[in-house]
Amino acid sequence: MNNFVLHGNIIYSKNADELNIIENGYAVCQDGISAGIYSVLPGEYAEYEMIDCGNKLIIPGFTDLHVHAPQYAFRSVGMDCELLEWLELHAFPEESKFFDVNYAKKSYSMFVDDMKTGFTTRACIFGTMHTDASIVLMDLLEKSGLKTMVGKVNMNRNSPEYLCEKSAEESLKETERFVHLAAQFKNTKPILTPRFIPSCTDEVMYGLAEIMNKYDLPVQSHLSENPSEIAWVKELCPWSSSYGNAYDTYGLMNSKTIMAHCVHMTEEEMDIMKNKGVFAAHCPESNINIASGISPASRMLHEGIKIGLGSDVSGGTTLSIPRAMILAAQCSKIYWRYIDQKYKPLTLENIFYMATIGGGEFFGKVGSFDEGYEFDALVLDDSTIKTTIDFKLRDRLERTIYLGNKHNIIAKYVAGNKIF
Amino acid sequence: MNNFVLHGNIIYSKNADELNIIENGYAVCQDGISAGIYSVLPGEYAEYEMIDCGNKLIIPGFTDLHVHAPQYAFRSVGMDCELLEWLELHAFPEESKFFDVNYAKKSYSMFVDDMKTGFTTRACIFGTMHTDASIVLMDLLEKSGLKTMVGKVNMNRNSPEYLCEKSAEESLKETERFVHLAAQFKNTKPILTPRFIPSCTDEVMYGLAEIMNKYDLPVQSHLSENPSEIAWVKELCPWSSSYGNAYDTYGLMNSKTIMAHCVHMTEEEMDIMKNKGVFAAHCPESNINIASGISPASRMLHEGIKIGLGSDVSGGTTLSIPRAMILAAQCSKIYWRYIDQKYKPLTLENIFYMATIGGGEFFGKVGSFDEGYEFDALVLDDSTIKTTIDFKLRDRLERTIYLGNKHNIIAKYVAGNKIF
Repeated sequence: MNNFVLHGNIIYSKNADELNIIENGYAVCQDGISAGIYSVLPGEYAEYEMIDCGNKLIIPGFTDLHVHAPQYAFRSVGMDCELLEWLELHAFPEESKFFDVNYAKKSYSMFVDDMKTGFTTRACIFGTMHTDASIVLMDLLEKSGLKTMVGKVNMNRNSPEYLCEKSAEESLKETERFVHLAAQFKNTKPILTPRFIPSCTDEVMYGLAEIMNKYDLPVQSHLSENPSEIAWVKELCPWSSSYGNAYDTYGLMNSKTIMAHCVHMTEEEMDIMKNKGVFAAHCPESNINIASGISPASRMLHEGIKIGLGSDVSGGTTLSIPRAMILAAQCSKIYWRYIDQKYKPLTLENIFYMATIGGGEFFGKVGSFDEGYEFDALVLDDSTIKTTIDFKLRDRLERTIYLGNKHNIIAKYVAGNKIF
Repeated sequence: MNNFVLHGNIIYSKNADELNIIENGYAVCQDGISAGIYSVLPGEYAEYEMIDCGNKLIIPGFTDLHVHAPQYAFRSVGMDCELLEWLELHAFPEESKFFDVNYAKKSYSMFVDDMKTGFTTRACIFGTMHTDASIVLMDLLEKSGLKTMVGKVNMNRNSPEYLCEKSAEESLKETERFVHLAAQFKNTKPILTPRFIPSCTDEVMYGLAEIMNKYDLPVQSHLSENPSEIAWVKELCPWSSSYGNAYDTYGLMNSKTIMAHCVHMTEEEMDIMKNKGVFAAHCPESNINIASGISPASRMLHEGIKIGLGSDVSGGTTLSIPRAMILAAQCSKIYWRYIDQKYKPLTLENIFYMATIGGGEFFGKVGSFDEGYEFDALVLDDSTIKTTIDFKLRDRLERTIYLGNKHNIIAKYVAGNKIF
């Protein structure tokens, strides 16, 4: 049995707008599940291993709802491009290398090592169109101890010849082969991953919806990221009333779906997201790096659309979810200043919620220390972030988010298992 | 004589839009001044000490045109505030502690240590209103070897009682005392520093212009950062046609003046900046953290307004000028997307120019390796930024800006002196 107690300063979300802050408290893990947070440890847990974290911070792990593993090697290169140019010049050429499983192993090892040692405990990850390379990625992730979902990408049109599936049949057949191969893993699960509508014919989309229903699988894709992309989808799907409506028509919008970006959203798209319980993966760094725009994240959060954060490497340059949190707050301030003052900028409480429960919910009861949640935790030592001031715990959390890096993480747990 | 040669991959700005990239070249330092860049080392320098930097990158040092040293201790705390609330809750209470020179020494030591080990070779720095503490800061900076300018702050109105000079006379008298005390230093020089118009009476402003002329001193202040602040200046200076016009009327706008922020600029203000040769300190992180807005930096750069970058700690959270460069590019993309598509987003070349020559010019011939420039250099080891790709030098520079940190700096020179 995986039973233990972390003793230290515990911070987690009460709700999207408030934090629970327990100074010098006890977080109890019972067989990988939280048995609650206590100021005084109940006698029934007295026999559990007690791990003294001293004055350090104990928080839930972070979820990365959107990241492209094969793009990790060229992160931060090509930042002067817009989306479609960036795909052509950088993303597609690099992804084409993953037909070679040896290259995949080399590149994915680097990605998994960095994710393992960072703030992320859960992630939903794009591979490439290559089934075997995607299984290599899952194998590495399985061993990391992180809990993840991985998608073999579908793309059978409007893609360079060197990175395009030959037919809808092949695309769907490879998807099923991927799903069967992925069954060997425990920590990492398959997720259906049509790249985005411009890359997938209707036949692939409808076929994926069938596979989704047949195997009860989740889905991830991109929605309304960039104006040129949106205009293109309008041309490709003249029968749809919006980009989001097209996905919905294919049957792919439901409570086990993640749509990344959601930047230029119509009211209809907002309604679909809300009514179908679709998760938005807010990727602020990517959205500003490739000049897409700013997502109405504060509105989505406060109007009941499920929303978490994505690093979107390598539209984003780093796997750091703290960086995504900071940029989410910063972008929301610009949104408030220039676009719409109806929704207040995102607060520290908001971005913390999005990084923990907001994205974690896609994995079930994840992202909180409330009783019954899977026990994902980070123990943070902020003593290296120099100051002359004796800060309160909320301020220490804010400083660690803004100024910390992976070297401030001294222990990491996923579902009660110690990763390091 | 301080004569040596750095041998490695040299990158510096040709102009605001282009880089000089010399693979495996030679950068010659002759008595602290660049004697030029060579692909083959001329015989006349054969006797100079040769420092082999291998495959590393050699670039000019970065200038931080705007930073508040006393705010360093609380950087990244209070990020949910706007400017005026943030000043009241965070900046003013912390700055009031600097009446105590012992506290000043403790806090400023931390600031100077971190600036010394970072990317910054030159900086224009705000102290507090306290003359003696500001001299403590200069003493620490003098010993660091960095080249800096430091201002004792003037503030004699609209400030909390615990942080407000008692009269214009006292403010001006202390300023002259500061200027005299500062004469002892070689690497660090005094700069006149009215906090901003709301904090300074007309008498102080006109008096500072006299001191400026008497001692031939530079000036730094804040301009048009936040809409509430601008409205307040309009009330305080009903005789002025704009915030910038008010500074100009006081006689403080000239080619030795830095105005920080320049976010919400009128056409008249743009004209004053351009015609008087005033430097803009673009502080993108601060501008988004405290929800001020986005400066028209690309327009200023391309219309011939002098412009460099500022960390603006602690409206900004970090002394990292690379972070300011990244955010300058990111903000310019949002500006282009939502505010004005007339000016293209800032490129890597643009932000590199702003960080080197753009700000360096305030210190004279600084920020380039062209012959005659002071020899400020950083040697960067990017081999720790993992990848599987063999990148060209421009891409390696981009990666190091986006992903590097101070640990990637393996040597730093200011005017030919080795800092580490």
